Amino acid sequence: MPITLYDLAGAEADRRFSPFCWRTKMALAHKGLAVDTVPWRFTEKDKLPQPNAGRVPVIVDNGQVVHDSSAIADYLESRYPDRPSLFGDDTAKALTRFVQNWTETVLQPGLVGFVVLDIHRHSAPQDQPYFRQSREERFRTTLENVVRDREARLPAFRDSLAPLRRTVERQRFLGGDAPTYADYVVFGAFQWARAISDFELLAADDPVAAWRGRLLDAFGGYARKSPAYGG
Amino acid sequence: MPITLYDLAGAEADRRFSPFCWRTKMALAHKGLAVDTVPWRFTEKDKLPQPNAGRVPVIVDNGQVVHDSSAIADYLESRYPDRPSLFGDDTAKALTRFVQNWTETVLQPGLVGFVVLDIHRHSAPQDQPYFRQSREERFRTTLENVVRDREARLPAFRDSLAPLRRTVERQRFLGGDAPTYADYVVFGAFQWARAISDFELLAADDPVAAWRGRLLDAFGGYARKSPAYGG
Repeated sequence: MPITLYDLAGAEADRRFSPFCWRTKMALAHKGLAVDTVPWRFTEKDKLPQPNAGRVPVIVDNGQVVHDSSAIADYLESRYPDRPSLFGDDTAKALTRFVQNWTETVLQPGLVGFVVLDIHRHSAPQDQPYFRQSREERFRTTLENVVRDREARLPAFRDSLAPLRRTVERQRFLGGDAPTYADYVVFGAFQWARAISDFELLAADDPVAAWRGRLLDAFGGYARKSPAYGG
Repeated sequence: MPITLYDLAGAEADRRFSPFCWRTKMALAHKGLAVDTVPWRFTEKDKLPQPNAGRVPVIVDNGQVVHDSSAIADYLESRYPDRPSLFGDDTAKALTRFVQNWTETVLQPGLVGFVVLDIHRHSAPQDQPYFRQSREERFRTTLENVVRDREARLPAFRDSLAPLRRTVERQRFLGGDAPTYADYVVFGAFQWARAISDFELLAADDPVAAWRGRLLDAFGGYARKSPAYGG
């Protein structure tokens, strides 16, 4: 029986843009596990199976509900130990957390300043007031103001990718010759941006763009087939 | 026979401050290998065993010369496979490179702006003209100008440590329960600063300071016993 994944969707039900859900989808593909996704909107708190934290991803696997992308990755690794490992050994799992923390303290906060208005534009009509209010409270300004100077911020954002760039110009994936969960965490952030924004984050010749392309191609082009913009 | 390490020294021969040599010294301690260090100054290019790149660390192990901290770590791992692993599995080794690239593109460039004048102050008299000239060419200004606004830059520097901070407040070391080479790479940068500067980089209650303390305590307080400032 396929695993069910509650997956954040936009006004178009097949436009899936949550970076955390992308982590889970790539992890499921890595494990070779079939998945049925259920499109879910920010304001459909009541539609998630229990227990949950009012957020996605949430998976249901043979009746067992697991929420939070990190908890889901841990669950998949321990429940399906004979499938390809998401993490590698204990040291690799510990170092994956550094990559995740870089993603959540540098990459995602950088990205949101470029795409937050595009997220609003692509959100389901019933989600838009919630999304605008919650994000404008967080930023203490309008979404329009957040993105107004994004062209000027682009060089500093690209500079902030130096640790990623220097790594993936010397090896195919963060995890080495093949991708691991660390790659999916970082990729999820780029796929989030790519799914809802046509803003060009990466120069065409950036090794980060080539790495992203390798992940778009992974698992038979799984991520590339999902509705998104550009490269 | 102990391994010989050519180790950058200041005007005082026992003040050892190269971040790259600290990587090597911690790696040697991790492997439980005895070492004799030879104090070396920037301008003593002719005193290094062949082959070398005019820089330290250089080690000599039973007549074999290995230079470059990364090459030395690889050498130690393959030459002494029965000793505790520096890296973990292939995935962990690949992810260690991300940590190293973060160290070299974020942490070390940040640190040098705080301590470059202190390096000059502690350098051997015969090294000072070389050091000043080469660094002033790199920065395109005087060493005094580089550090002039360092107090003002401190908050942004501390913010830049967020990926490290968030990781080591949730686990003892980057490598998990015990330190691995990724820890030594990051620690080497802090030990570099600590060896030659009394500038307070970290707030006393910063989890990064606690993690640094755990590494100062490692191997019987090996790094803590080396001449340095403060915590």
